Amino acid sequence: MSAEPLTVTSLLQATTVAAPRCAADLTEQRGTRRVRIVPAYGNGAVDLDVRYLWCGAPDGPTVIVQGGISADRDVCAGRDRGAGWWGPLVGEGAAVDLSSYRVLCIDWVVPSELGHVPSVSSGDQAAALAALVDELGIGRVHAFVGSSYGAMVGLAFAARYPDALKSLVLLAGAHRPHPLATAQRSIQRGIVRLGLDTGRTDEALALARQLAMTTYRGSEEFSRRFAAGPAWRDGRFHFPVEDYLEHAGRRFVERFDAQRFLALSESIDLHDVTPEAIAAPATLVGFPSDRLVPLADLCELQRRLAGTATLDVVESPYGHDAFLKETAQLAPVLRRALNDCR
Amino acid sequence: MSAEPLTVTSLLQATTVAAPRCAADLTEQRGTRRVRIVPAYGNGAVDLDVRYLWCGAPDGPTVIVQGGISADRDVCAGRDRGAGWWGPLVGEGAAVDLSSYRVLCIDWVVPSELGHVPSVSSGDQAAALAALVDELGIGRVHAFVGSSYGAMVGLAFAARYPDALKSLVLLAGAHRPHPLATAQRSIQRGIVRLGLDTGRTDEALALARQLAMTTYRGSEEFSRRFAAGPAWRDGRFHFPVEDYLEHAGRRFVERFDAQRFLALSESIDLHDVTPEAIAAPATLVGFPSDRLVPLADLCELQRRLAGTATLDVVESPYGHDAFLKETAQLAPVLRRALNDCR
Repeated sequence: MSAEPLTVTSLLQATTVAAPRCAADLTEQRGTRRVRIVPAYGNGAVDLDVRYLWCGAPDGPTVIVQGGISADRDVCAGRDRGAGWWGPLVGEGAAVDLSSYRVLCIDWVVPSELGHVPSVSSGDQAAALAALVDELGIGRVHAFVGSSYGAMVGLAFAARYPDALKSLVLLAGAHRPHPLATAQRSIQRGIVRLGLDTGRTDEALALARQLAMTTYRGSEEFSRRFAAGPAWRDGRFHFPVEDYLEHAGRRFVERFDAQRFLALSESIDLHDVTPEAIAAPATLVGFPSDRLVPLADLCELQRRLAGTATLDVVESPYGHDAFLKETAQLAPVLRRALNDCR
Repeated sequence: MSAEPLTVTSLLQATTVAAPRCAADLTEQRGTRRVRIVPAYGNGAVDLDVRYLWCGAPDGPTVIVQGGISADRDVCAGRDRGAGWWGPLVGEGAAVDLSSYRVLCIDWVVPSELGHVPSVSSGDQAAALAALVDELGIGRVHAFVGSSYGAMVGLAFAARYPDALKSLVLLAGAHRPHPLATAQRSIQRGIVRLGLDTGRTDEALALARQLAMTTYRGSEEFSRRFAAGPAWRDGRFHFPVEDYLEHAGRRFVERFDAQRFLALSESIDLHDVTPEAIAAPATLVGFPSDRLVPLADLCELQRRLAGTATLDVVESPYGHDAFLKETAQLAPVLRRALNDCR
């Protein structure tokens, strides 16, 4: 058993190390723009306010960076906010170098912002991003770097707007969800609906998050960290892994909303893009320990994409969360991918 | 996508094929005996009524056969009941041949039968079986054939009553639960407790069962069977895998009880046996696709057992449920194991 302290890591707070901050000669826009899109599950065009961060070299090419469903627009460190959910990889001198590139990232769009449509698609997120790119006068995007749900949105973006981007960099996300992952997410949504129905939303959302975490992390990591026996407390046995998950669940509830969770979780399962329709060159990154997005699905994606596609296989004990945790291994892959399409 | 129809299989109804029935010269006792044990989490000895099936060759050596937490004593086909949860493997002429052996199987003991102790241990189950073996005048048990939780109880039996059995045959169960599996079960119990608290017990138990099923079956099997897209119904999208799980969840609720589920699920996670304390020769059987009981844990068990131990690795797409589904592959392994210790 390792002596590593029990630390709680979530998708948003992947790191607590200080990341490079935007220097004086870098630009930062953190704002909202009204754009018009036609949602997949709606009845015509709607206007919505997209919240975005656009940060980096004023004259550098723009790189879109999007993460998982619980990530927000604050991808990197900045004034008056935290270290950013991908801080170690996005910053001055980092792999996505803000002194060379300008990074664009949005808060995911949810159905209540689309005229209360029942669902939001990965294509809707892509449409919001494309409209924003237009609105900001960016022209052609240098690269779309997407992880997890962000990779799905990147594929939807490339399929719908082939002329709007030069290249794709996709980590731990594919053209379709794996049916076992859909099963796990549909149960998470069932738990949350039960909580909404019974007025126990927070408790249910925390349980759903706990379930999600069992699908994010590697099996070996659980084995290494939680081998100790249970403790008797409050009338029942509590297992170390249970305490860890319950803490993480409570943390998630503090910063996330049940309806938002339901919509974005479902959006992953609705995602379905035909790889043959995508011609942009792609760098794919997969993790053998990722049980949520099996490497086999990235192999299939690589085989089926119409453009050139490479697949980098990165060993990690962290499963799906490797895209947040393996910053040292990912940095050279990202640098090379962004450089190749210059 | 295979044309295989969507069939729902549960731990108890693993097969619907007709299994050999006890012939006239075979004996069958299906009854209850009062035994006295000292529960692990109680305050001294208690008397309890153990429900058992003892069936087969009247003068044959007795083989204990126990399955997962949702299995009952009806391991094989018989008059006035179904095909048995292990019918294809236990019967006249089957791998566990009832014309040579007499098979003993009990309904799992739950805390309400132990003077309302808070929890029941795998050792308590072993104690109930050992007391029953005494009560029935069986003498030394030829073999303890345990699958899943039954394998854990077999190990507890061998550790506590080394002189009461000749050999162990253990499928998909180890000396301790894997922490990731403990995480998944602790969430299942959290869902059920939420249901009990809010008067939505059936719905919660069904969700917990759905979650359990995602851990039983192989990832590939899900991928093969549920690749189709969602259907819009009752105000939201339903995914094929979700319909399958919901149906299975409802079926489980019809035959299972929330308190029983909580206690037996927890009992798996409380299980902890020291392999070095077990001298009985053991045949271990593991499945590479089993994500609930990783093969690595069976390798560790084999290495640490004090007696001779072999490990049979059986390829299967069915994950943990392979012990119910791979009857053709398991039959020769069981025959050989039972024969070796004659």
